[in-house]
Amino acid sequence: MNPFTYDQLPARIVFGAGKLAEVGAEVERLGAQRVMLISDQATSMSAEKIRGQLQGRLALGWDEVAQHVPVDLAERARTAATEARIDAVVCIGGGSSTGLAKAMALSHEVPILAVPTTYAGSEQTTIYGLTGGRHKQTGKNPVVLPRTVIYDPELTVGLPPNVTGPSAFNALAHSVEALYAPGNNPVTSALALEGVRAIHRSLPRVMAAPDDIDARGTLLFGAYLSGIALGTTSTGLHHKLCHVLGGRFNLVHADAHSVILPHAIAFNAPALPAEMARLAEALGVPGGDPAAALWDLAVASKVPTRLADLTGHDGLLKRDDLPGAAHAAAEEITVNPRPLTEADLLGLLERAYEGERP
Amino acid sequence: MNPFTYDQLPARIVFGAGKLAEVGAEVERLGAQRVMLISDQATSMSAEKIRGQLQGRLALGWDEVAQHVPVDLAERARTAATEARIDAVVCIGGGSSTGLAKAMALSHEVPILAVPTTYAGSEQTTIYGLTGGRHKQTGKNPVVLPRTVIYDPELTVGLPPNVTGPSAFNALAHSVEALYAPGNNPVTSALALEGVRAIHRSLPRVMAAPDDIDARGTLLFGAYLSGIALGTTSTGLHHKLCHVLGGRFNLVHADAHSVILPHAIAFNAPALPAEMARLAEALGVPGGDPAAALWDLAVASKVPTRLADLTGHDGLLKRDDLPGAAHAAAEEITVNPRPLTEADLLGLLERAYEGERP
Repeated sequence: MNPFTYDQLPARIVFGAGKLAEVGAEVERLGAQRVMLISDQATSMSAEKIRGQLQGRLALGWDEVAQHVPVDLAERARTAATEARIDAVVCIGGGSSTGLAKAMALSHEVPILAVPTTYAGSEQTTIYGLTGGRHKQTGKNPVVLPRTVIYDPELTVGLPPNVTGPSAFNALAHSVEALYAPGNNPVTSALALEGVRAIHRSLPRVMAAPDDIDARGTLLFGAYLSGIALGTTSTGLHHKLCHVLGGRFNLVHADAHSVILPHAIAFNAPALPAEMARLAEALGVPGGDPAAALWDLAVASKVPTRLADLTGHDGLLKRDDLPGAAHAAAEEITVNPRPLTEADLLGLLERAYEGERP
Repeated sequence: MNPFTYDQLPARIVFGAGKLAEVGAEVERLGAQRVMLISDQATSMSAEKIRGQLQGRLALGWDEVAQHVPVDLAERARTAATEARIDAVVCIGGGSSTGLAKAMALSHEVPILAVPTTYAGSEQTTIYGLTGGRHKQTGKNPVVLPRTVIYDPELTVGLPPNVTGPSAFNALAHSVEALYAPGNNPVTSALALEGVRAIHRSLPRVMAAPDDIDARGTLLFGAYLSGIALGTTSTGLHHKLCHVLGGRFNLVHADAHSVILPHAIAFNAPALPAEMARLAEALGVPGGDPAAALWDLAVASKVPTRLADLTGHDGLLKRDDLPGAAHAAAEEITVNPRPLTEADLLGLLERAYEGERP
């Protein structure tokens, strides 16, 4: 039993199909009188329903959001929030909507009620991010952690497969890496393994039948637990690699997750026998190979398994691009359960490029 | 995926052998200047070490505690706390010490730093209790939830087997019943199953070698997770039966747990196929019978498995005592996953009396 420190984060979770109908009651529970409602394009109809529930408590509606929360957008939203004298934020949508709500919480110290409609998990973390010019500022602050989170799987039914798959694999990767990334602890690991189980059980079903509410619910539950994993631990080998690939080639960020994860785990597995045994069990192959099981899950879910199939700003990713990426990643990755070299990373990327089953 | 509501409770957990040494730093982290230190007889030496760490921040030492927190004791402690102008409580010891700290938090709204030295789990709950005359007042209030909990397995090495075994089985029962008791939710269930795994893995080792720090650590970790289970869910069939038996016959409360739990689970199992499959897995018998596995664990841990061996105020429990207990329990148990009658309860108690393997 290794020593650990763990800050259990508070949040009220309301989970279930149709729970969108409880936003009004939960706002009342927070004691809020002047609510800012943040929504995105994809959630305008649900936002309309929330308006109906808030009635006189709605002080400001805001439907302009953008990836990575640009500073100028946050500034405009903050000015409007000040003028509207808001005392709470309700956000509905994906990571951009939650991100803007966090910027409001940071400046106005108001509680957030989040209604996430993707699998990003940001609603379970104290992490915030703002982008100014070409740089991204990120930090951690307990004030940005949503006080209440409503998970309603009905809101995810419309997520197209090309968003569902990569977003779910991103969540899965957070749970998997939480087993060994810095900051890991045995409580988060237990929740992360449950997240893995839920995503493994539901993702192929969701991809085959996007309106299967039970499968959507299980997937959203897995994403919730992956959010806790993300909030507790730092990023590991897999996410660092995806970050480098995404940054260098302007890949659609989440697309790389299903490609890289099996190979990152195959590389780290020899250093993590106990963790990998539990991961294999959670992936339905007790005693088996978790890296292969992750690859099989990607195939069953019809998400990318070859870097060669991914498109960046210069078209399809080329084999010649890999050495530069391996070099950049080697500089960024300073901590890993299994020591690694630039050559190891290049080998990993080459296997991911070919998309071999690990 | 069933709907659920879950209030994730905040707490800072510091876990590890020797972590008693961090009480001072954690008190500083809380910003406390005038600390009340509550200890019990068994922890006076550890309390001395805490005094050394607190130095000028110690405003009041208090070493009188009693089971179920008698109202008059709480009143005297509160008066002293007011005079000492305390702004935090540090408690070290078992449930009585934590219970008195909670009474202080309730009246003085001060944060608690708890250092539990048994497996009661009270430090993870918002539940408080006070006893006045013959009645016990209990309630829930977030203010009594310890802000920081330091788990140091070294402090549990001296717990005698006749306390360790029943106290651990009480914790185990909280985790097991959290799988189906009212208030259960899939997050708590994941943590409870991890608690079951930890207790199952460590208890026989601890009973065989009480100073095995690694096993003590795993057991304390299991008790911590069982505390979360206790705080989230209500009590189920098992705990209600133990409560009735304890009250009627003045049994040492925790002694009944290892006797009743296997039979309560055997009774409820047919109504809970999914939960029991997961419980069996956590108990190391995937596909097997969790009730039998619990009974085997009790035998391996050398804790009681027969009601006939338990002593009440009138000496050994008699077979003739069972019908009255079954009648009383039938009146108390209104919710159960499997419908039950007084005859069912009598049958259960008779099997527990004989101590048959279920």
